[in-house]
This record gives sequence, structure tokens and C-alpha cells, in this order.
Amino acid sequence: MTGRWVIISTRRRKRPNDFRIERSTLVSGSYCPFCPGREDLTPPEVLAFRQGGTAPNTPGWDLRVIPNKFPALQVEGTLDREGEGMFDRMNGIGAHEVVIEHPEHGKTLATMTAGEIERILWAFRERVVDLKKDRRFRYILIFKNHGAAAGASLEHPHSQLIALPIVPDFVREELDGARLHYEAKERCVFCDILRQEIAAERRVIQEDADIVAISPYAPRFPFETWILPRRHGAHFEDAPRAEYEGLARMVKSVLARMNRTLEHPAYNMIVHSAPFSDDVTDFYHWHIELMPKLSRTAGFEWGTGFYINPTSPEEATEVLRNARIETVRG
Amino acid sequence: MTGRWVIISTRRRKRPNDFRIERSTLVSGSYCPFCPGREDLTPPEVLAFRQGGTAPNTPGWDLRVIPNKFPALQVEGTLDREGEGMFDRMNGIGAHEVVIEHPEHGKTLATMTAGEIERILWAFRERVVDLKKDRRFRYILIFKNHGAAAGASLEHPHSQLIALPIVPDFVREELDGARLHYEAKERCVFCDILRQEIAAERRVIQEDADIVAISPYAPRFPFETWILPRRHGAHFEDAPRAEYEGLARMVKSVLARMNRTLEHPAYNMIVHSAPFSDDVTDFYHWHIELMPKLSRTAGFEWGTGFYINPTSPEEATEVLRNARIETVRG
Repeated sequence: MTGRWVIISTRRRKRPNDFRIERSTLVSGSYCPFCPGREDLTPPEVLAFRQGGTAPNTPGWDLRVIPNKFPALQVEGTLDREGEGMFDRMNGIGAHEVVIEHPEHGKTLATMTAGEIERILWAFRERVVDLKKDRRFRYILIFKNHGAAAGASLEHPHSQLIALPIVPDFVREELDGARLHYEAKERCVFCDILRQEIAAERRVIQEDADIVAISPYAPRFPFETWILPRRHGAHFEDAPRAEYEGLARMVKSVLARMNRTLEHPAYNMIVHSAPFSDDVTDFYHWHIELMPKLSRTAGFEWGTGFYINPTSPEEATEVLRNARIETVRG
Repeated sequence: MTGRWVIISTRRRKRPNDFRIERSTLVSGSYCPFCPGREDLTPPEVLAFRQGGTAPNTPGWDLRVIPNKFPALQVEGTLDREGEGMFDRMNGIGAHEVVIEHPEHGKTLATMTAGEIERILWAFRERVVDLKKDRRFRYILIFKNHGAAAGASLEHPHSQLIALPIVPDFVREELDGARLHYEAKERCVFCDILRQEIAAERRVIQEDADIVAISPYAPRFPFETWILPRRHGAHFEDAPRAEYEGLARMVKSVLARMNRTLEHPAYNMIVHSAPFSDDVTDFYHWHIELMPKLSRTAGFEWGTGFYINPTSPEEATEVLRNARIETVRG
């Protein structure tokens, strides 16, 4: 009906007969497979930023990227797209990697330095540049679940990359809308939104030389926040160095504001970037969406895309803008 | 970008400065405003099925429909659609009603008789027929959140109706897909799916003379279940009596199967029906979607529409089909 693809990934369920997969408790420090010294508990690293002279898969790293031990998609094989009556299916080919963001178990993006966050952004970039060489992939999803309520199963600071043979729905819908706007006006809709929001001010949480954080006009969730580069650019991985620097500072700053005012919320952070193949450079504009998980009222919204939000974006902006935080330095 | 509307409903937040709106505990029996004898705690009923001789808003009812005390939308006023720069807004005009399904606090759809469930379906129908006379409304959403994990804040069995001045995204997307299929083939896509699934059998949980329950081919969530009438019909409220009878038995039966095999899960149930105005009768097919809330892994899916499902529909079908339940009678 809707052209939606779903990944059926039965391998991710470890106990075949247990369908109740509550994951409300996080794996704590003493058994953490992401801590230094436990490198043998994870698949071998595909990228690491290391102190000089240390060997792969040993301590001494500042950041590691590893394949996910329970991947949603498998990297080996061919897609074998086929029809099944009126339906479409293909093999679950893809890559699923974990970025272990910091050696310290208790660090968070809000307590890391902006320099440490920038290191994570460079790791994202490096992995995307490498993975997009594989012609089977059409999109790479970069996201972070922080806190059990947001779906994280490990406490140690980490984010994830999933390389996909399809373009996910949420990107496709944004692209369709952005294309329509471009066809009508020959302007990027995100650039237009930025211009209007910066002029109106009421929904601007913070703006720097390169990066702007706003409460979007029609937020689905309380305190949903978008972080956009001012400069037009479709692909996250093609951003200039200054934008990674500015983005790192902005992410740290916005999360510090949320921690201060919203009691250290769980959150999902998702990089929205253009698909590889399509010629979308004129009308798509990469950005980050940050959704703190404040309520369990998601029951209904979940699965319908119909949203009732008890907090206006202007109110959220005021709360976050006035949060007393330390000035974020690199 | 996506044409999405969001309801900003700040009135629903009772404490203005408290943004953490966790609602994980249900209001328990002794304070329940929906129990008989507490009719003065709710707004006056707009519909009730009553035992002979009992007065409105007093005990003696089998089912009551009341306006929601904390409505997401207000019924008074005009829409006043206007532009705000490049954005669109209108007043939050709508109706938000609660169907108190049964006088007994501890009843559930699985433990009610099929006759009692049918009574609820007739109440839905009656309220839709009445509300659709109001020309401001384009769609009426009928849904049920069961259990705190699914977003319910009261334990007493109830469901909700929201009359809307817009067509929600999830319906619009289904309509677009169904229209494309119809334009290509001059057949209803839901009828085609039913025909294919009944022939293939592997995803049919239960089928009766009028109603079929299936695991959809690309389920977003483990044990997501669709319940469809065999006969083509776009609007829930126009269904013939036999379909309400069959639907009541099927809902009871499917929930009994889930309770048996999935430890009495929380769930969301949503009626998918066609909008009033559009001429969609040839290609839309009303049905019910039932989503048990089994995992908290919704973190990421929430807000992206990108789904990783650890349970295949064939596996879910087998589990539910083989559940040992009593035969459901009317």
C-alpha cells in the first residue's frame, strides 16, 4: 500500500521462543563489552582512532568502530530481489556497525568535549565514505539511541550505522516534499525554513556561525530539535570541516540544555542525509533530528504517524534557550 | 516537507511547568472515574446504552460515550486556516470522545462476550454517523490503547474517537497507494491481498464467513495483526450487521490468542476507515490494525517509520493460530 519496506531480522532474537523482548535494563559497567580491555568480546574493529603504537583490538583507542554482533542485516550475499505474488522481497543485505564513541564507560555526548564529539562525526564520515563504495547500498542511516527508554541496550556511549539497499521511508517522504518545493520555487525548502526561522527568532534555540538549532514548526514530540547547517549541502559526509566543528559544539550544547531542563532525558538522534544515487543535491539539505523521549504516550503515535504534542515549539524553545549551561568550547 | 499535520495541545498538560509526562501507572479501581456511580466525575454522556428506566448520567448503563475531559481538540470555534510564512496552521477544532466500553472495571475485550464487543462497535458506528454531519470534519479516528505501555492512562476498559479537520498521514499514505493500485488494475489492493493471503494460508491467523485476521506481509512490529472484512467496503460505519458480529468474535478471539501466547500484552487497536469526502469507495477497504506492544525497542522506529522486526509474519501466524483458546461464541 505505502511502499514501505520492513526488515525481518529473526537472528536478532537470541531466544527463539521468547517473544517478549523487553530491554528496559542496560548492561552495566562491570560486564560492558565496549570497555577497554574487553576488545575480544566484540567483532574485530573496522576503524579505530588510536594512540600511537597500540595494536588493533587492544586498549589504547579513543574511538572504535566494530560490526554489530547482532546485526539487523548481513553484509555477505546478493540482494536477489524478487516478487512474491503482489509483494516484493529481497535478502537482508546491509552493514550494521557500532561506533564506540569513547573509552570511558560513563561519558555522554553532553559530558564529552566538543573535540571528542567532532571525532565521532569524523568516524561517521569515514565509514560512510567507505561503505558507499559498495554499489548494493543506497542509503546509510546514522543514529544514536541514548538511554533504555530510547531503545539502547548498552550504557557505554555508542552510536550506530546501518547501510541499506533501500532508501528509508522517512527520507523518501522528505525528499518528495523537498522536490515539490524545489520544482515550484527553485529553492531548497530547508534553506527557506532556516531563513524564515532565523528572521522570526521564536523557534531558534541557538545559532552559531555555521550551525542553527531550532524547534521545528510542527514538532511530533515535545522538545523535538533540528540541528541544521546554514550552508546548503545534501550529504553529511561532504560537509566542510567547520561544520563538523560547529555541529559538535551545537550537539553538546543542546544536550546540555536538555539535561539541565528535562532531567537528563533518554533520546534518539538521527542524521538525515541524502541517498547516494539520486540527483538531489539542489533540494535536499542534511541535518540532525534529536528527539528526547519524555513520555510513554507514544502508544498511539507509534504505528500511525499521527501526533498529538502537549508542548508548543515556542515554549520548548524558550525553555531550552534559557537553560543555564556553561559555554561550550572546542 | 512531508505535508504532516501535528496537533499542539498544551491544554492536555495539567501541570504547566512539568514537561516529564510519564504516565506509566494506571489509575486503579478505587478512584476510577469511569466506574458506575461516578458519572458526575465525567462530562455528561453523549450516548449511552441503558437498562430501561435509568436516567442519563446515573448508573444502569451498559456502555457510555462521553466527551474527553482533557480533549486534544476543541469542538467550539472555526478552523481559521491561515498561512504563517511558508507554514500552514488552523485552530485545533475537533471532537474527542471516550467510549466507556463496559460497567465492570476489570473487563477487557478478551473477557467480554462477543455480544458486548459488538455493542462497542455499534457505539462507534453511531458516533461516527452523528459526527460526520459536522462539515468541519474530514476524518474520525477510532482507536484503543490497552495497558500503560500502550499509552493508556486509565485501566477501566475504554476506547476513543477523535474527529479531525484533516486526514491523518497514515490514512493518506494508504489511500495514495490504494489509488495507484486501482488506477493500474481497477481492483482494490486490499481485496487482492486478501485473495492472495487466503490462497497462500501461511499468514492467515483465523478466517470466518465474513472476517479474516492475517499477519501482514511486511509487519512493522512483532505480531502486528490486521483484521479485514472479506467484502469490499470503504467505510467502517457502512458495514452490514453481519460484519460487526463477525468482527466482534474475531477481535475477542485474536486477543485471546495473544493473551495466551504473549502474556497479556498491552496493545493499540486502530480502525482504518476511508475519509468522508473523498470518492474512495472503489479502492479503499476498511480494516482494523492491532499492534501488541511487546518490546521497548521502539526507540528508533519512533519518529522515522523505519522498522526492524525480529518476528516473521509466518512465525507470528503459527504461534497465534496454534494458541489454545475456547471457541468464541456470540
